[in-house]
Amino acid sequence: MMLDTSRRILIVGLGLIGGSYARAFKKLGFRVEAITKEEASVSYALEHGIIDAGVTTPDPEVIGRADLVVFALYPTVFVEWIKDHQHAFKSGALLTDVTGVKTTVVEQVQAMLRPDVEFIAAHPMAGREVYGVENSDENIFRGANYIVTPTERNSAAAVADCEEIGRLLGFAKVSTLTPEKHDEMIGFLSQLTHCIAVALMTCNDDPNLKDYTGDSFRDLTRIARINDAMWSELFLMNKEPLLKQMDLFMAEFVRLRTALEQEDVDTMREMMRCSTARRALFDKNK
Amino acid sequence: MMLDTSRRILIVGLGLIGGSYARAFKKLGFRVEAITKEEASVSYALEHGIIDAGVTTPDPEVIGRADLVVFALYPTVFVEWIKDHQHAFKSGALLTDVTGVKTTVVEQVQAMLRPDVEFIAAHPMAGREVYGVENSDENIFRGANYIVTPTERNSAAAVADCEEIGRLLGFAKVSTLTPEKHDEMIGFLSQLTHCIAVALMTCNDDPNLKDYTGDSFRDLTRIARINDAMWSELFLMNKEPLLKQMDLFMAEFVRLRTALEQEDVDTMREMMRCSTARRALFDKNK
Repeated sequence: MMLDTSRRILIVGLGLIGGSYARAFKKLGFRVEAITKEEASVSYALEHGIIDAGVTTPDPEVIGRADLVVFALYPTVFVEWIKDHQHAFKSGALLTDVTGVKTTVVEQVQAMLRPDVEFIAAHPMAGREVYGVENSDENIFRGANYIVTPTERNSAAAVADCEEIGRLLGFAKVSTLTPEKHDEMIGFLSQLTHCIAVALMTCNDDPNLKDYTGDSFRDLTRIARINDAMWSELFLMNKEPLLKQMDLFMAEFVRLRTALEQEDVDTMREMMRCSTARRALFDKNK
Repeated sequence: MMLDTSRRILIVGLGLIGGSYARAFKKLGFRVEAITKEEASVSYALEHGIIDAGVTTPDPEVIGRADLVVFALYPTVFVEWIKDHQHAFKSGALLTDVTGVKTTVVEQVQAMLRPDVEFIAAHPMAGREVYGVENSDENIFRGANYIVTPTERNSAAAVADCEEIGRLLGFAKVSTLTPEKHDEMIGFLSQLTHCIAVALMTCNDDPNLKDYTGDSFRDLTRIARINDAMWSELFLMNKEPLLKQMDLFMAEFVRLRTALEQEDVDTMREMMRCSTARRALFDKNK
């Protein structure tokens, strides 16, 4: 068991999620350092006791003393970071991440990684519509899912350690999926829903509509406020699975549209009953 | 001003909305009677003081003593009811409704109506995912929109009375729209969102997905639990405006899909920024 508090933790990327990891680890008694781009994030985190030390450049000494390194970066930045700085890792270090897409990222990182360190990928399914370490809060993990996505390159020990990290951070449910299955699931549950919300928000520019908006419209478009830099990158990294989910959705939407056009009440009602029954399953699980 | 408490109110259709109207009018001191299909609804309403009297058949005596009649029926049932029983109205009676689509219903009812009674249409934009008088609650009107949809056949007095009803019932905002503008708005804000939720729920039948569901998916599909008899009727009654909104949405969804397929990051990000900016307007107005 590697995760006793004598182990040193390094967070790379001190935003909402990285900051929340740091807070949670600190509360558990770990020593936590951070490398992050903005001096303001380091100052804030130090002032608020979120980290023990922090730098804004990838200092080899800081990297070299970490036993566990958590990457909370945009996917492309993460891959570049590994390429440029992996020489500095301590031999035997365990690396993990928080990236929202897996197949491409995990393949790229594991393919180039030094053989004496191990990268075990994970996706903490937690977030808010706000950003930055200033909004970090370890309570966002409560009630949320934490998914470990091991490949055949991973050791059983690393998988077990990564699952333990999820439990230590306070996630309600820790599970494992293959990177491919994870990306299919996230393509449907998260990325497709964001695509829908964006299209719904951009398809009608009548400024008076907001005067009549009810809860259902607000619910469907809450996630239409979206970080365009991050989400466009996540979409591209998961292009094929997301296109597949978009096509599945569009086929059903067109089926409903055709039923309406042809006044085919039976099909409309059958779809509504199927929808109602399936949605009830999601409630039970809540 | 017709709405003093000496006026007798009749609710036709004692479900969630009809029952909530009855409760609100009773609290204001009006005498409220009801005509509704189910004996159980009448018994429940009498036992709980929701109405003063109720019958399960369209008794001409009951109809004939009402000064204000509120129709809380499915649209097709409402139109048929007027055809079959309008001979029984008291001369000078005011009729209103709660129907979620307007153009077709208002045209049909006003075209056939006796000249000595007046129908002024309204849409209380309130509801819940539960049904029946047992779930009625006048508090569902608080914070909600009430929209009067007059035509050139309506008198200024009736429009004013109908607006007053909205205020008496406790709606946060009372406004007027033409039936056509109302149906366009409801096609976008309410019906399109229900179509999306239904298609999203039916397009993927993987039973394991619910284990990983987060809040965004739950938010988008809350309204996927839908009364298929009522909503298929509402969709058909608003067929052309809804088809138009579905096409607007689909065009934007396809634009986003094409941008993803072609890895056109600029278009993806531009759509996301537009979506984010527009959604912010809806928040402000909350």
